[in-house]
This record gives sequence, C-alpha cells and structure tokens, in this order.
Amino acid sequence: MGKREPSIKIGIIGCGYWGPNLVRNFSAVDDCYVKFCCDIDANRLRYIQRLYPFLEVTREYQKIIDSPDVDVIVIATPVSTHFPIAIKALNAGKDVWIEKPMTTSVKEAQILIKEAEKRKRIIFVDHTFIYTGAIRKIKEIIKSNALGRILYFDSVRINLGLFQHDVNVVWDLAPHDLSIMDYLLEKTPVGIYATGVGHYNNDIENIAYLSVKFDSDMLAHFHFNWLAPVKIRQILVCGSEKMILYNDMEPSEKVKVFDRGVTINQKKKENIYQTLVSYRTGDIYSPKIDTKEALSVACEHFIDCVKLRKSPITDGYSGLRVTKMIEASQRSIKKKEHWEPI
Amino acid sequence: MGKREPSIKIGIIGCGYWGPNLVRNFSAVDDCYVKFCCDIDANRLRYIQRLYPFLEVTREYQKIIDSPDVDVIVIATPVSTHFPIAIKALNAGKDVWIEKPMTTSVKEAQILIKEAEKRKRIIFVDHTFIYTGAIRKIKEIIKSNALGRILYFDSVRINLGLFQHDVNVVWDLAPHDLSIMDYLLEKTPVGIYATGVGHYNNDIENIAYLSVKFDSDMLAHFHFNWLAPVKIRQILVCGSEKMILYNDMEPSEKVKVFDRGVTINQKKKENIYQTLVSYRTGDIYSPKIDTKEALSVACEHFIDCVKLRKSPITDGYSGLRVTKMIEASQRSIKKKEHWEPI
Amino acid sequence: MGKREPSIKIGIIGCGYWGPNLVRNFSAVDDCYVKFCCDIDANRLRYIQRLYPFLEVTREYQKIIDSPDVDVIVIATPVSTHFPIAIKALNAGKDVWIEKPMTTSVKEAQILIKEAEKRKRIIFVDHTFIYTGAIRKIKEIIKSNALGRILYFDSVRINLGLFQHDVNVVWDLAPHDLSIMDYLLEKTPVGIYATGVGHYNNDIENIAYLSVKFDSDMLAHFHFNWLAPVKIRQILVCGSEKMILYNDMEPSEKVKVFDRGVTINQKKKENIYQTLVSYRTGDIYSPKIDTKEALSVACEHFIDCVKLRKSPITDGYSGLRVTKMIEASQRSIKKKEHWEPI
Amino acid sequence: MGKREPSIKIGIIGCGYWGPNLVRNFSAVDDCYVKFCCDIDANRLRYIQRLYPFLEVTREYQKIIDSPDVDVIVIATPVSTHFPIAIKALNAGKDVWIEKPMTTSVKEAQILIKEAEKRKRIIFVDHTFIYTGAIRKIKEIIKSNALGRILYFDSVRINLGLFQHDVNVVWDLAPHDLSIMDYLLEKTPVGIYATGVGHYNNDIENIAYLSVKFDSDMLAHFHFNWLAPVKIRQILVCGSEKMILYNDMEPSEKVKVFDRGVTINQKKKENIYQTLVSYRTGDIYSPKIDTKEALSVACEHFIDCVKLRKSPITDGYSGLRVTKMIEASQRSIKKKEHWEPI
Repeated sequence: MGKREPSIKIGIIGCGYWGPNLVRNFSAVDDCYVKFCCDIDANRLRYIQRLYPFLEVTREYQKIIDSPDVDVIVIATPVSTHFPIAIKALNAGKDVWIEKPMTTSVKEAQILIKEAEKRKRIIFVDHTFIYTGAIRKIKEIIKSNALGRILYFDSVRINLGLFQHDVNVVWDLAPHDLSIMDYLLEKTPVGIYATGVGHYNNDIENIAYLSVKFDSDMLAHFHFNWLAPVKIRQILVCGSEKMILYNDMEPSEKVKVFDRGVTINQKKKENIYQTLVSYRTGDIYSPKIDTKEALSVACEHFIDCVKLRKSPITDGYSGLRVTKMIEASQRSIKKKEHWEPI
Repeated sequence: MGKREPSIKIGIIGCGYWGPNLVRNFSAVDDCYVKFCCDIDANRLRYIQRLYPFLEVTREYQKIIDSPDVDVIVIATPVSTHFPIAIKALNAGKDVWIEKPMTTSVKEAQILIKEAEKRKRIIFVDHTFIYTGAIRKIKEIIKSNALGRILYFDSVRINLGLFQHDVNVVWDLAPHDLSIMDYLLEKTPVGIYATGVGHYNNDIENIAYLSVKFDSDMLAHFHFNWLAPVKIRQILVCGSEKMILYNDMEPSEKVKVFDRGVTINQKKKENIYQTLVSYRTGDIYSPKIDTKEALSVACEHFIDCVKLRKSPITDGYSGLRVTKMIEASQRSIKKKEHWEPI
Repeated sequence: MGKREPSIKIGIIGCGYWGPNLVRNFSAVDDCYVKFCCDIDANRLRYIQRLYPFLEVTREYQKIIDSPDVDVIVIATPVSTHFPIAIKALNAGKDVWIEKPMTTSVKEAQILIKEAEKRKRIIFVDHTFIYTGAIRKIKEIIKSNALGRILYFDSVRINLGLFQHDVNVVWDLAPHDLSIMDYLLEKTPVGIYATGVGHYNNDIENIAYLSVKFDSDMLAHFHFNWLAPVKIRQILVCGSEKMILYNDMEPSEKVKVFDRGVTINQKKKENIYQTLVSYRTGDIYSPKIDTKEALSVACEHFIDCVKLRKSPITDGYSGLRVTKMIEASQRSIKKKEHWEPI
Repeated sequence: MGKREPSIKIGIIGCGYWGPNLVRNFSAVDDCYVKFCCDIDANRLRYIQRLYPFLEVTREYQKIIDSPDVDVIVIATPVSTHFPIAIKALNAGKDVWIEKPMTTSVKEAQILIKEAEKRKRIIFVDHTFIYTGAIRKIKEIIKSNALGRILYFDSVRINLGLFQHDVNVVWDLAPHDLSIMDYLLEKTPVGIYATGVGHYNNDIENIAYLSVKFDSDMLAHFHFNWLAPVKIRQILVCGSEKMILYNDMEPSEKVKVFDRGVTINQKKKENIYQTLVSYRTGDIYSPKIDTKEALSVACEHFIDCVKLRKSPITDGYSGLRVTKMIEASQRSIKKKEHWEPI
C-alpha cells in the first residue's frame, strides 16, 4: 500500500460554550485532527487542555493563523470578530469554518467570499440545523416533489432566555430558521417586513416577527422570541399536495407528513361562478430520523469538502443569503413608518 | 306578590348553522322566549320547526321587524346583510344582537351605533369567545394585576378549512382574537401591518399575519390560516411578572399561568455599563375554568342588559373597534409597497 | 319495478341517556324505523316524544313485546333487567339488540343464546367500540399480518367518574376493552387474575387490574379506574414485527403503527451461549380513520343482519365471551388468598 | 484557624456506564475526593484515566479494599458481585455505596445490614430517583397531608430496550419505582401478585405487572416493560383530597397536583339507602422542581452521612425492603397456579 494521505490540521479560535463540542466532533472525523486551540481567557484554556491534553493552546490567535502547521481555521468567537479573523485566515491561505451568523453585515460577507474565491479557499458557515437528521429528511421529501407546489413556510422559535448583550433576537435566532428555509426551498426572497420590540433595551429587540415575500404567491413568516413561557421550535412547510410539520421539541416524532390539502373547483351555476372547496384528509406519516449528532455530520462534510476542494452545502453564499435577510429585517424593524393607521 | 314582568320576545333572522344553537340557548334563559324564526330557505325552516314546534316561522324578515310582538332582533345572516337588517330593526325600535363580524365596514358600524344611541336601543355583537370560562378567567387574572406590565399578545388560530366564498381569513377568524385582545387589554391600537396571500383566489386571502402597534412598547401579533395541517388555537399574554398560555385545544388545562420572567440589572464595571439578565422560573398554575357553554352566558348577559337597559360587554363600540382593526389589516394587505428589499 | 321490501319495525325499551342516540341513529338507517319507545319515567317519555313526535310511547314494555307491529326489540334498560326482557322478546319471536354488558351472569347469557338458536332469532350485543373507525382500522392491520406474532395487549381506561351505584368498575368499563380484545385477537383466554379495591364501598370496586392468560406466551392486561385525575383511554397491541398504539383521547392521530421491535440472536462464544439483542426503530404511520359515528355503523350492521338473517359481529357469543371474563375477574377479585407474602 | 478536617477518600469498583458519572459527581462534593478506580477491563481504565488524570487505577478491587487510604467503597459492578464485594468492604471497615439493586436476594441484604451494624458502618443504596427534585417535591406535598388518605399508587415504566442478559425486567426496572413508593408512602406491604412473560427467553421476563397489597384498602400497581413502542414513565399517587401525576417525560411540568376527588353521601330515601356521589374538580398546580442532578444530591447526602455517622435516606433497610418486594414478585410470577379459569 502507498503512503497515507497527510492529515488536515485544524486550529480553533474561540473556545467558549461551543468550543469543546467542536474539538470532540472534529476528533472523531478521519483524516483530520485539532492541533491548536485559542482563547483570550486563560482559565478557559486550562479547562480545555485538561479535557484534551493533546491540544496546543495559545491566547494569541495570530500564532495559529501564522502557523504553517495549520490547514484549517475554525472561528468560534463573538460575531463582531468573525470578519477580521476570517479575512486574515483566508489571506494566510487557510480554509475557514465560521460559526453563525457569518458576519455582522452583508458587505463583510461579500468581501470574504471574494477573497476566498481569489485564493481558491473554502468558506463553511456553521448553520448546524441543516445537518440534523430531521432537516435532511425534509429536504429529501421536498426534493421528491411529494409536497407539490410550496405555498408557505411558517416558523416559530420561542423560549425564555438566553438574552444576548450585543445582538438582538433576530441576529441570535434567525440564522437557524432562515438557513433552513434557504436550504429547503432554494428560492430567492425579494422583500421582507419585520416588526419587533426591545422591552428591556430599546435597541435590542427580544421579540420579532418577519414576513418574507417571494416572486410568487409563496409566503414565509418567522416568530423569534426570547421572552416566552414555553419552548416552541416548530416549522410548517405547506405544499399543495402534502404538508410537513417539524416539531423539534418532540422526542420521537419530529417530522410529520400530512396527506392533507384542498381542491378548488370553479362551477358555473345559474350564470354565477361558484367556488367549491373540497378537503383531503389522509394518512399521517412520521419518517424515521437519523439521530446522528448534527455537528458531527457537519464536521465530516466540511473535511470532505476540504479534501476534495469542493464547495460545502453551507458555503459563503449560504451565509451571505442569510445575512442579507437579517440585514433587511433589521432595517425594516427600525423604520417605523409603514403602519396602517387604525 | 305583584304581576310578573312580561317576557322579552325574540325574533331570529337567519337560521343556518348557528340558528338552532341560538334558539336552544335563548330558550334556556329566564324572562325571554324565541317567538319568530326567519330564513329564506324553506327546507331549513321546516327543519327548525320540527326541532322547535312552538316557533312561528317566515321567509320574510320584514314581517318580524314589523311585528309589535317582537322586542329583540337576532341577526344571524351573511355579513353583507347585517347592516341593512340591523338599521331597519333599530328604526323599528328593536334591540339587536348581531353575529360577528358586526358589519362589512367601519362606516356601517358607526351608523348603527349612532342610530342605536338616538333611539336608546341596545346593540350586542356576538363575540362569543369573550363569554367562555377561559377568557373570563384570564380577564380576572389580568384585572388583579398579577401579570404586571403587559409586554406582548401573540395569537395563532390555524386549521384546515373552512374556506369562505365571500370573505377572507381575516374577516372570518380575526373577530375572535381581535375581540379577545380588545376585551383583555383595553388598549387602543394605533397601527397595523398585515401580510397575506390567497393561494386559490387572489382576492380572498387564506393565510394572514397581523402585527398591531400600540402607543407603548406593547406588541400584538396574529396568525390566521385556513390551510394548516394541524389545528392550533393558542394565545400568549406575556406580562413583566407572569405569563399566560391559553390553549383552546387542551381538554382540561386550557389556561396556564407561568410564574416566569426576566430581571435586568444595569451594572457599571470598569466604566462599561453591563446588562445582567436573571431569569425567574416558578410554579405553573392551571385554574379551574367554568365549563358553561359560552353562548348561554352571552344570551343571559344580553337579556339582562335588555331588561336593565344597560350596555353589554360586547356592545356596538366593541364591534366597531374590531371592525376598524380588520379594515386596517385589509388595507395593509392590499398595499404591497412596504417590503424592505433584500 | 317490484314491490318495496317492507320496513323493519323497531321498539326501544329504556330511553335514558343512550335512548335518543338509538332513535336518531336507527332513524337514519334504510329499511327500518323506530315505532315504539318505552320508559318507566313519564317525564322522559314526554321529552323523547317532543324530540321525535312520530314515536308511539308507553310505560309498559310488555305492550311492545306483544305488538305484532314490532320486529326488533332494542333493550337499553339497567343491566339487571336485560335477561328477563330479552327472554320474553325472543319468546315472542323478536330479534334483540342488547346494550352492554349483555347480562349479569354467564348462565343468563347462555340461556339467551340457546333460546335464540331454537327460534332462529338474532342477538346483537352493543359493544359499540367494535364499530369505531379506529378499531376497524386496527382489525384490518392485524388481519393483514403486519404485526407478526401478537406478544401482548395492554389497555388503560381511567378517568374521574362516573361512579355506578349497582355495578363495579369492571362491569361498567371492562365490556369495552374486553370486547375490543376479543374482536381483535380472536383468541380464547384460559385464566384471569384480578385485583381491585372499593375505596368508598367495599363491595363496589372503583379500581381494578386484570391479567389475562392464554394458551401461549401472549399476555393481556387491563387497568380500569373511576378515580383518576386524568382521562386515559389507551391500548397497546404489540406484535413481533410492529406495534400499535391506540389513543382514543387524541383528536387526530388515534391509531399509530410503529415499525419497532427486537431481534434476538443466540451466539455461541467460548462455549457460552450469549444473547445478542438488536433493536429496530423505523417509521411511524398514523392511518386515516373513518370518522363515521360508531353507533350508526352498528345500527346499519344490525339491520343488515336482520334482513339477511345472518349473525352479527357482536352476536350473543361475543357477549358471552365478555361476560365469562368479567365473571372470572369478579371471582378472582373476591378471593383474597393468592397474595405472595413479602 | 484550626486544622482542616481531613477529606474522605473514595474508591470506586466498577467503571462501566455509570462510573464516570460517579467520579464527576463525587468530585464536586466538598470534603471528599475519588482516589481509586477499579475495572477488570483495561481499556475502560485507560478511558477513565484520560478523563480524570488524577485517579489511581487498578484491575484488582482487593487492592482498593485493602488500602488504608480509602474510607469509602462505591460498588458499581454487576449485581451478582455486589454482595461479595460489599461484605469484604464492610469487613475492612469501609462505608459502602451500592448501586441498585442492592443484592440478588433478601438473605444477602440481611447479612450486609447485620455486618454493617456490628461494625458501625454505613450502607447507602443508590436509589437515585429518591434524590430527584420531582420526588423530593412529591414527598414534601405528601408530608404536608395535602393529599388526604392515600388510596392508590399506580406506576408505569415502559420503553423499547434495554434488554438485560442476566436479570429480568423486574430486577432491572422495579428498584426505581418500588423505592419511590417505599420512600413516599412509608407503608409496609403485606403481599404481592405478579404476572410476567419472557417472549424471547422464557426465564427472563420482558414484561411484568405487579399488584401490591397493604394492611388497608390502599392498592399499588406497577407495569414494567422493555418491549413497548413508546416511552412512558408515569406515577399516579391518588389521595382522598388531592391527586398527583408525576410524568418524568414532561420537560417542564413533571409534577401536577390535581384538586380533584369524590364525595360520597349515604342518603336514606323511601327506606332505601342511596349512594350519592359528587365530584370535585378544582385547580391544577405544577410546582417548580429543583433541577439539580439527582446523583449530585445523592453524593452530597452520602458524604454528609459518612461525616456525621448518620443513616442515609436510602440505607440498607431501604434496599432490603425493595429486595423483599422483588423477590416476592419473582416467586409470584414463577408460580403459575393462581389463575381463575374463564
């Protein structure tokens, strides 16, 4: 047998809440290993090193970027630092994994994409939900055309906490559901209307509603909320033939496919056109969902893309599309002029 | 003992789906009885007379309005006829009960109110949900100030069917939830933003979302939908101290009061103001709900108001406020210019 | 066209809670009509006649039995009177419909069956649940052999109320679930072990548990309870290939079929036989259920059997088998000697 | 400042599935630390040492028992070895923590208790559920006498998996629910009746039902099942005044207290005693539950008992009482003579 392909070496910048999950999941992927970990908090570094004694740690991320011994940079820092770190990493010829949301603005996302294309580097945006068994199953169902024409997408993600200090509920929660919609429907929205309120800090909305318009009669809507007494994570994808309910809080039946719908007939009767509606209510089906940890699927896919030099599902453009929607929502919330007086 | 107070005589105009319920419930109230029933469909009249042989029936509603033997007119016809029938009834000196929605326009509602005031007649709008045990219990809790400052009101009323031929999903479903909000919060909204789509008939929206703005940081939001695979009827009333979840589909715990909330502290640290959020998660309490049929409570209240010449909870102004919100929603949906481009 | 088949004339004896439902449902079936109604309570008779003016009423049931104008007797009286009325009706040459439970003893049930066979009359026992869409669908699935070998049957029927004065919770509730098991599994049980307690009346158990043994490794178990804080009506039918959960309290997914199970392999390793268990967890499927009222299906089936002189699904033998199980449970509860000391 | 109290040194024997949880939780308790870990599997030892580099590991448990540097032995081995290890540990003067079930027989449990008493050593049996916030809250409610007289205890613990090779479903699951009942009710049962079947191995039951009798009209019942399509973990504790539902699968409302019950009046009417039943249906209340990990509470309580030389809540007698019930169940299942013929 020939020489073994040299392993991909990973440096992780930012080892907060998500850091140990990243180390653990990348460690289980073939053909790669985590070499460096960086955090500005020395205590955090000691903690992570006790968990993973094989790691080299540093408080200066530039060392990781400069190291010829690192192929891939994983950026898990606060969102405001994603752009400066990512641009340096790309400049240094590294592939990058960026936690969600990708950047704080559309402009930053566009610069990163351009830089990556110039240098033939890979950008992966960690829209983890895309890699859950539930969303992959729903994608499969939609691709089979079982739903018919998609009529609407309705998403609710509400809970008590965790209030963020620097970003509002849209920047915090919307990357999940907007990336899910982007992935499942593959449609380009043309406009957004958003309302929201910051009850405790006027600048940081803790509740927001988004309506998203497309170049058709499809409608999408989102409810994001940090201040609800119950935890709801629910998406409806309604087609002309079948309808899907995705309830992430259900332990064993997360995805249900309803054979339900409406048939409309126009009938001419006594010179008047009459609309006859008939309802279809058939079986309900809850497909088996792959329970493999989503982050593990994401890590494998990313390393695969790095090896084969191909674009990941959640590439820079995916991050850009989501950032565009968030930015438009933000503008819409802040403009307060379009209310119809009562 | 003196002479018994003569009974209030009721004439019902329109005996479709709701008609027999009205006859049955008014029949159980003291000091009143249903004397006449009118419907344009002779078969329907035969059916109703077999159920209630004591009723006098007619196909011409004018006869009931003209009859000196009728004190009260109950209008349960299609919404487009509410105004012409009600105005005649008021002219004839009758008190009127009008099914929801009150009228097809704000202007009609205003004329009816003016006419009723001129003639000292009573208008009752049948916002039946106000009279359910659940809503009365929630009102009691809110009145006791247990919720603290009201932060938002979020309502979802979705199901598969029943598509209407003449009115959209807002005119059909919103009277329920808008009248509930109006009753519970007693606040005057200042603006509305609504989006909606008619997937089968461009003019008749089958899905709609409403954001309602007040003269404060309170926000209200509504989701109405005839085309959903599951039936959800759920309202969140979130206060600074406690939060209420009203789930009308629950058989035995329709109302839950959550002792949950957020406390925000501003702390100055190293010359930076830092926001500290702490979460409160206490007991959950599900009060016993009076299970008396709401329509029966409504009928009793109405007859009581007729006897005592007092204004009902759901009077003409209640109907007017709801109609104003529906009309503004309608205008907002039809204007398609306020979308923020993405 | 030939002469129309003369209609089957029905006399109902006992018009309490269930009476109006029987009149209404038989009235909707072709080729039969309800001619007589009997009750010992004159007020009840007046009430029923106002609802159904075409009925002839009487307080003496013998008149109905003697009438040559009645073909079928429906017995909806308290259980202690089922036998004397039914035996007279059979003697008079009538077919009989008997509400559940059929009789107060196995002996009575056997006499009725013998009498009916002698006179070629039909006995129908109203085990209504057999005629629900849910149970018919489950029967269809079991008949298709989709479940594999049946391993166990577990049933829970608990609620607060309605305490009976004359019979215990087994006589009251068990006819439902025992008849369902009898119908679905078509197996003859060989023994029963039951425990129960009457907390408020030592003779009338308000909670009981039944274990039922068969001539195989199949086990059945039942929990009946009038004194539970929540309403549960749930049956598990577990097969070697698939498992069914029937939850009668679910509004829209009453029947769920789980593609779940266990595979056991014996493996010889180092001279020790080792058991290897592997688990199968596949899709879940909730078939569409016919929502037609069960009593209506039962009435149609009964009239069909009367016309064609064939035996109904829930014939006298069905009633006998259920009565045998109840009687054995009763004996087992009262014997208190088989407890294993702790 | 005086001299610090020397720490309690712990040796853990058996580091399978539960081992790392024990190390982690004891490590968080003051005044104690885990010094030794033993397992016969060298790979497992390497794994545990990588997680906790400060541990001394060995494959020979006798070394730990002999070590003067160990005060407390934690036994987390297969149940058949609990007795021989525990007796040696007690002989060596150590306090012992034994995983559930305590021993394989009543006799073994009695010998251990005698030995511990002779040497004034502490036995702790790890009935972890007793230390959950939910069970501690229920205990508090029962102690306050809010439930009134306890009428019955009904428990269901069913799921698909995990089939055990050496013990049946009763030995596997019953220690949880029997210890919960023992703790909550503090009543001594007098007899047990159990039925069960081993569908895949005649000797190892995978489904079992237990009825437990007391010296009163209180009844207890248990359903244990490894072969169910759904996961149910539910206990009803029903009192004459209030009723508790404990649903361990509920994420946020595990304990519900129902103000429900029955009042029975005897009324003499026309020389017949008539029973009048009235039902009470009041509020439902879901108390806040302490979410602290149960094992952590258990570890703290144990170390506290070791320091203060007091008996733990789940002492040897608690383990003995549970073992007695399991042994009686076992005998009852194997005797197959008490079935009432049908």
